[in-house]
Amino acid sequence: MRQPQETDRCEIRVVHEDIVGEVRQAQADETEIGDLAALFQLLGSPARLRIVEALTGRELCVCDLAASVGVSESGASHHLRQLRQMRIVRYRREGRMAYYRLDDDHIASLLETGFEHVRE
Amino acid sequence: MRQPQETDRCEIRVVHEDIVGEVRQAQADETEIGDLAALFQLLGSPARLRIVEALTGRELCVCDLAASVGVSESGASHHLRQLRQMRIVRYRREGRMAYYRLDDDHIASLLETGFEHVRE
Repeated sequence: MRQPQETDRCEIRVVHEDIVGEVRQAQADETEIGDLAALFQLLGSPARLRIVEALTGRELCVCDLAASVGVSESGASHHLRQLRQMRIVRYRREGRMAYYRLDDDHIASLLETGFEHVRE
Repeated sequence: MRQPQETDRCEIRVVHEDIVGEVRQAQADETEIGDLAALFQLLGSPARLRIVEALTGRELCVCDLAASVGVSESGASHHLRQLRQMRIVRYRREGRMAYYRLDDDHIASLLETGFEHVRE
């Protein structure tokens, strides 16, 4: 008996070598895919998304950022270090304060497109 | 003694209530942030990214897709079900074949922007 969930698969196996070759030709290299997966993994956390959301279009010091997203300053700091490693945020010091902002426009664009998708 | 890693934090704690209020006002609701995190989490896997990459700009049957990304058909099927739940891919049946494609333009755009970021 065919399982109902099997209907989302092909019932016969036909591999078109020309199509497969074309797809493989267009593939990004392993490092790029690994980096991209790491980027999305890092964004796959509500707490870190709140931080990125807060920094969209504005710069915030760590105190204001932590208070805005409702985490401790040490918690915010931990997330920010991870986000910096992936070049999602950057910071600058001014006197005794550390100010964070998004590293570039790609990040704001990822969030915007992602929100559009989940809101649809 | 101040730890070196402390320099990426504020050395004094000053919370600006007006700024915090502004940021909070602009926050997406919990459900949206949760859905967005789930979307990025799902994309945070090299295997699933390979599938999404393969489907960018083209429709593929499960056999060709599995062969292209180098996974078993049952492995591809498992990922595809997860991707469908998040409306990242959709499928149609034609005869005995199941053809998959990206659900909408948002997904291709997320991948493109993400690649731009990691390649920079």
